[in-house]
Amino acid sequence: MNYIAKLQAYLDLEIEAIRSINLASVEEVMNVLEKARINGQKIFICGNGGSAATASHYCCDFNKGISEKGEKRYNFECLSDNVPTMMAVANDIGYDEVFRFPLKNKMNPGDIFIGVSGSGNSKNVVNAMKYAKSIGGTTIGIVGFSGGVMKEIADYNIHINVNNMQISEDVHMIIDHLMMYVLDH
Amino acid sequence: MNYIAKLQAYLDLEIEAIRSINLASVEEVMNVLEKARINGQKIFICGNGGSAATASHYCCDFNKGISEKGEKRYNFECLSDNVPTMMAVANDIGYDEVFRFPLKNKMNPGDIFIGVSGSGNSKNVVNAMKYAKSIGGTTIGIVGFSGGVMKEIADYNIHINVNNMQISEDVHMIIDHLMMYVLDH
Amino acid sequence: MNYIAKLQAYLDLEIEAIRSINLASVEEVMNVLEKARINGQKIFICGNGGSAATASHYCCDFNKGISEKGEKRYNFECLSDNVPTMMAVANDIGYDEVFRFPLKNKMNPGDIFIGVSGSGNSKNVVNAMKYAKSIGGTTIGIVGFSGGVMKEIADYNIHINVNNMQISEDVHMIIDHLMMYVLDH
Amino acid sequence: MNYIAKLQAYLDLEIEAIRSINLASVEEVMNVLEKARINGQKIFICGNGGSAATASHYCCDFNKGISEKGEKRYNFECLSDNVPTMMAVANDIGYDEVFRFPLKNKMNPGDIFIGVSGSGNSKNVVNAMKYAKSIGGTTIGIVGFSGGVMKEIADYNIHINVNNMQISEDVHMIIDHLMMYVLDH
Repeated sequence: MNYIAKLQAYLDLEIEAIRSINLASVEEVMNVLEKARINGQKIFICGNGGSAATASHYCCDFNKGISEKGEKRYNFECLSDNVPTMMAVANDIGYDEVFRFPLKNKMNPGDIFIGVSGSGNSKNVVNAMKYAKSIGGTTIGIVGFSGGVMKEIADYNIHINVNNMQISEDVHMIIDHLMMYVLDH
Repeated sequence: MNYIAKLQAYLDLEIEAIRSINLASVEEVMNVLEKARINGQKIFICGNGGSAATASHYCCDFNKGISEKGEKRYNFECLSDNVPTMMAVANDIGYDEVFRFPLKNKMNPGDIFIGVSGSGNSKNVVNAMKYAKSIGGTTIGIVGFSGGVMKEIADYNIHINVNNMQISEDVHMIIDHLMMYVLDH
Repeated sequence: MNYIAKLQAYLDLEIEAIRSINLASVEEVMNVLEKARINGQKIFICGNGGSAATASHYCCDFNKGISEKGEKRYNFECLSDNVPTMMAVANDIGYDEVFRFPLKNKMNPGDIFIGVSGSGNSKNVVNAMKYAKSIGGTTIGIVGFSGGVMKEIADYNIHINVNNMQISEDVHMIIDHLMMYVLDH
Repeated sequence: MNYIAKLQAYLDLEIEAIRSINLASVEEVMNVLEKARINGQKIFICGNGGSAATASHYCCDFNKGISEKGEKRYNFECLSDNVPTMMAVANDIGYDEVFRFPLKNKMNPGDIFIGVSGSGNSKNVVNAMKYAKSIGGTTIGIVGFSGGVMKEIADYNIHINVNNMQISEDVHMIIDHLMMYVLDH
């Protein structure tokens, strides 16, 4: 099959989305994260599907990538990394509770919650974000499309305004490397 | 194939190992864990191979299983659950550092470290246990065979004195359910 | 707290459950697994909560533990190990489909399906088992309590007849090591 | 802190890297993958650190994302998804063998191996790629920097020629969504 024209069209949209990133919003989030690192606060992150892989990847880049040299290290935790707990909650209580549940064990006021969601409307992420707010946590949405509910309720947002799930996920991953690379250099 | 006689021999050894459990040492560890729960201290757990699955399983049973009803919940974290970080450390620094590394991000004095190891000698678990001790953490070894290095250096031990890796792992899993069941009832 | 009496009661029940294992049913399953190994058939395994850790642990013991020396190796795959896929299915389709979905990608007639479930009634495991049967797979239930739906429909069962979720999970883990140890020796 | 200028510089480099993608090489890989899907061949994928998350994410997008509608589905498997097996191999044999080992259980001639590596030189990925070639598999390198050993030995390559690990990883993730989006539309 010949796919070149369609590949090019996707990449054109990708570049447009990258150019549309609101850098002030990224800088704002970087300052929130750096403050958490310096003050020893935890940063919880989660998402569904591909965004679960993205959330796991953020942990690696902040906990290992840019924490290796410094005195004060990042303390990220991805809320889908303990599979047995997630599946026990999904099976016994409901899939919409898989992220809120572990926050009740782990989150303290002042800690950070990052929700990653293309639509900004993932029920389980929204539930966890609301809980985080209710106990005095700081909330960050990393969203696509119109930003959904999460854009409305999060304290900070990085919103990629594009109606394409794959481009949203691409740029959410870029945001990780963008922040960690600049913080490291 | 006919396996019945060998199956029976394995189970006889299993029952002997279960009967040999030092219940006072289990009770001691339960009191350490309960104190951590009540004081809001974190409990880190890790192991290699099958013991990594065991460590993940402990998190589920304490964070979800017996934390569902109560006000003060357990805060377990399994140090191999974030695969990207573990593999970044293994690849860039060395497999022997995969558990010590994240403790530097996450562990505070007073927190608990549990190492699960059949031999009691897993290099990466021992490294993490030494680090935990060095910063004022409380250390627990869940070990088999002769107990190895971990039995020497841990503050508390549950030692299944059996020269069989599979029986060791079986009883290490039983210890999890044994503790959580009794705490729950 | 003093827990000794309750710990002892739990272990008494454990030993009783171990003694009640139907060794003929274990031998039968071992012969099914060995035939799959020799014929190059895949073996899928899954469970919820702690049983997800158990399912992951089985893969390690068969794919690595007893496959290291031989010419023909086991080919186990745990259906919750790819977290992004599982969460994409749970989020977009429903948690009850997380195990059936990947079987449609991966399972061929003649392959084996093992469902691990304390109750024997986990909806997502039952759905996958029914699918496996419908395409000509061989199905194995590893169950506790009364055995539930899975005991009715599976081609082979290892049933631990005990009304205790923790004892069920303990013995399901013992069954793994029991089978692999005897096959290895 | 003010990061805007550095953020912009990173994104400029990102866009340059995206524009440098050799679309013919992407198309070639898409045709290899489609042929594997139609012929029922397996596709194994692996990487270290962040690239492990990338490899897991590919599975989700091909096995679920674009397999949902069709008759013939993709059959991807990420070689670091079963954590106990990976850690058993790393601990008992060596971290350089964690990907080659499971291929010996699972790969058949005609199956596909995809290695994801920024440097193209990850020892464990290279070992697995060499094994895949030796048994008559088809090999694909998804690499950055100079492409390293993997570019030399892989049958097909998608090479992002950029001396930046983060940009490499970003574009490796984009390649996933790029391929699956175009195949789906």
